[in-house]
Amino acid sequence: MDSKQFREYAHQVVDWMADYLETIESRPVCSPVEPGEIFAQLPENPPAKGEDFQRIMADLDRVIMPGITHWQHPGFFAYFPANSSPPSVLAEMITATLGAQCMIWQTSPAAAELEERVMSWLGQMIGLPDGFQGVIQDTASTATLAAILTAREKRTGYAANREGLQGQAPLVVYASGETHSSIEKAVKIAGLGRKNLRVIPVDEAFAMQAAALDAAIGADLEAGRQPLCVVATLGTTGSTAMDPLADIAEICRRRKVWLHVDAAYAGSAFLLPEMRHFLKGVEQVDSLVFNPHKWLLTNFDCSAYFVRDPEALVRTFEILPEYLKTVADSAVKNYRDWGIPLGRRFRALKLWFVIRSYGVEGLQAVLRRQMALSRNLRDTMEADGRFEILAPLSLNLLCFRFRPAGMPEGEALDSLNRRLLEELNNTGELYLTHTRLRGQYTLRLVCGQLRTEERHIEQAWAAIRLIAESLQG
Amino acid sequence: MDSKQFREYAHQVVDWMADYLETIESRPVCSPVEPGEIFAQLPENPPAKGEDFQRIMADLDRVIMPGITHWQHPGFFAYFPANSSPPSVLAEMITATLGAQCMIWQTSPAAAELEERVMSWLGQMIGLPDGFQGVIQDTASTATLAAILTAREKRTGYAANREGLQGQAPLVVYASGETHSSIEKAVKIAGLGRKNLRVIPVDEAFAMQAAALDAAIGADLEAGRQPLCVVATLGTTGSTAMDPLADIAEICRRRKVWLHVDAAYAGSAFLLPEMRHFLKGVEQVDSLVFNPHKWLLTNFDCSAYFVRDPEALVRTFEILPEYLKTVADSAVKNYRDWGIPLGRRFRALKLWFVIRSYGVEGLQAVLRRQMALSRNLRDTMEADGRFEILAPLSLNLLCFRFRPAGMPEGEALDSLNRRLLEELNNTGELYLTHTRLRGQYTLRLVCGQLRTEERHIEQAWAAIRLIAESLQG
Repeated sequence: MDSKQFREYAHQVVDWMADYLETIESRPVCSPVEPGEIFAQLPENPPAKGEDFQRIMADLDRVIMPGITHWQHPGFFAYFPANSSPPSVLAEMITATLGAQCMIWQTSPAAAELEERVMSWLGQMIGLPDGFQGVIQDTASTATLAAILTAREKRTGYAANREGLQGQAPLVVYASGETHSSIEKAVKIAGLGRKNLRVIPVDEAFAMQAAALDAAIGADLEAGRQPLCVVATLGTTGSTAMDPLADIAEICRRRKVWLHVDAAYAGSAFLLPEMRHFLKGVEQVDSLVFNPHKWLLTNFDCSAYFVRDPEALVRTFEILPEYLKTVADSAVKNYRDWGIPLGRRFRALKLWFVIRSYGVEGLQAVLRRQMALSRNLRDTMEADGRFEILAPLSLNLLCFRFRPAGMPEGEALDSLNRRLLEELNNTGELYLTHTRLRGQYTLRLVCGQLRTEERHIEQAWAAIRLIAESLQG
Repeated sequence: MDSKQFREYAHQVVDWMADYLETIESRPVCSPVEPGEIFAQLPENPPAKGEDFQRIMADLDRVIMPGITHWQHPGFFAYFPANSSPPSVLAEMITATLGAQCMIWQTSPAAAELEERVMSWLGQMIGLPDGFQGVIQDTASTATLAAILTAREKRTGYAANREGLQGQAPLVVYASGETHSSIEKAVKIAGLGRKNLRVIPVDEAFAMQAAALDAAIGADLEAGRQPLCVVATLGTTGSTAMDPLADIAEICRRRKVWLHVDAAYAGSAFLLPEMRHFLKGVEQVDSLVFNPHKWLLTNFDCSAYFVRDPEALVRTFEILPEYLKTVADSAVKNYRDWGIPLGRRFRALKLWFVIRSYGVEGLQAVLRRQMALSRNLRDTMEADGRFEILAPLSLNLLCFRFRPAGMPEGEALDSLNRRLLEELNNTGELYLTHTRLRGQYTLRLVCGQLRTEERHIEQAWAAIRLIAESLQG
């Protein structure tokens, strides 16, 4: 493919992209294909000779697209959203073209310095106090792993890195029962062991019980174990519950335990001053992660990790072989030492495009609109009387189930709602997922997709009612 | 930015992209900016209001581009290349537009099934025997960490995950003194401790001494430590040295130690049957990683990780919270359990575009051409007489220094070559980096950029000679 062809095909792809986004509503949100259906259409062996570009594009439409779940569809209410936006896509086109590997400052100074700047912007935008420095990670899973590793090293005086964990008393991590699976994963990877993860009970609103946390830390200290790190979640995956940060921060300060905040989804909401009461206590926090690639219109992957002590982070990961030394090392930030992978994409560019294109006020307007849509839907459901709201609506995730009058708790009710979810998703008009809250099967409806408007919520509500009624028979 | 504007701007960006690639030679390869120069031009605070797209593009050209090091420049001979290619960029545009988060099968079945297929293609393309399964990771650093963690869990019967490492006898990892820094990083992250990484000496060609490896394992066993994993490198970062895989594999089989192969750069070369003698013994290997994002024309990040026992990999990482369960789980591959991050971009698409656009033969032709250019340059340097080749040329990385007749080993010679490197890079025509081999300052020239032609090598050689002579004075 020569330069002239590239230009021609890239224009063709742009029209494909714009057409796709303009007609996205005509596609079923969640791909309806069966397991193995796509795989069977792909040749067993790679082609020996190069193929024509038009043939590849035709196969994209014919073979691949039916197997895509459309995360940018306005009817996407599943999981948490992975929003992109037009300016973010434009930046990704440029990043791909530059193809710069931004592992160290010298391998693209602009990438390192733009990252430092936009991370400072992001910190300001969510109201972080001075004294934090930011770095882009791929995902919150990786950022949380980095936090636990840094805590491990700081606590052991970097002896775990040098000597391993064999000689250490057990190091204990604390998180609520509603915390994300990545915490357990990080505890395992770091060699601490699942049995040294304390699951702290939650209150009625699914938030960590601070008193129980304090008691658990006390018990571990008495038993000769080392309390290492508390992971407070702002916006749990199940129901966007908010752990009581101020109380937890007080405990961590008193107990001298690292405090990491997992605000992967909810962090974007702190662009709104009216939501920042959840951040009370953040000045005591050691590290915090949130994902612009979820709710802040920036393509995956782009996870914003803030730390109070970047030197500890760098000391945890730093290795400086001869082939990576440059004359600029003492004067610059080499972000390769701020995380696990050595190689790094130029991810700051899309954040820069997004923040500049929308402006802080534009982003705030998007968030406020989606939260209002969620509140309206909640009110509508409550007024209907046949639906139960199963968790407080703190942001824009509605946890609910259909419960016809008089139907008791139990497997029949769970099963009814499982069928409701399945039939809703089968319509292709919308896509919800589920969780369990207090053991009860719960439908999750996140109203956080950039393209979702009032009419999509109305359409969703009509489908929910219709199918629920049909199931009730 | 509405849909119409997006289409218009995206076409504009395409012309920017094509123009950039067509005129890339007019830019200095390595950015000449000073530390802080870009940062100072970026406003301290994020904009409150959205800005016009044309203004952002103008700032891209004015502020950002002078700080980019041009990895796709034909004069990029530094580090290892991070090749992209026109078809790969086109696929990245589509991936960005879909914005699908491919953590599990259901969140885009086509992404999971295309990944399984193209990884099978890649395995065939480098001559891997049957019995390996592949998964895309972000980088070789992460893949190697996954290998060491899987080895740790399999060896301890998954007790490290459950109980932590505190009760374990030390687990030992082995790699040569020329191995990549990511091995030490992984050993630390996994909680094994730097002191349990054995650095095995290398031979004259910088390849691991198998007998020394065997002796080191024996000594650890005698001391009651647990030999865990050997990392054999095919294509070291310093000089693309090839560890003797067949000998190492025999030792690992006999000693019952996990064998991981880090072929991050060299793996692509195994598309060429004439290079596969280096892979002898691969049928004994437990895991292998190589990076299509280096030498196989596929945008960063795209690291191909192959394992013989995917069940062990999944068991190491698997956590299944309620909110990630789907009805398809028993029938499909959920790649979220195959690595550290939960979220995943749709990275298989670019591999599919690249392999189909070039065909296996087209990719082989690119690799062969670059290796021939390197051999020619080596012959030219050797014929000149004033240059020393400091390592065998196994692929397309030339390790050399300028050594005027009679100049002894020592700091003056190192310093002369340090100045040679600096002045070469200051020309802006080319970009080399350095390493140390046997303690000697060594220039590295990798001829692996897709756009590099014979004339660029001639130009590089002319610059090297001219500057070397001027320094000799």
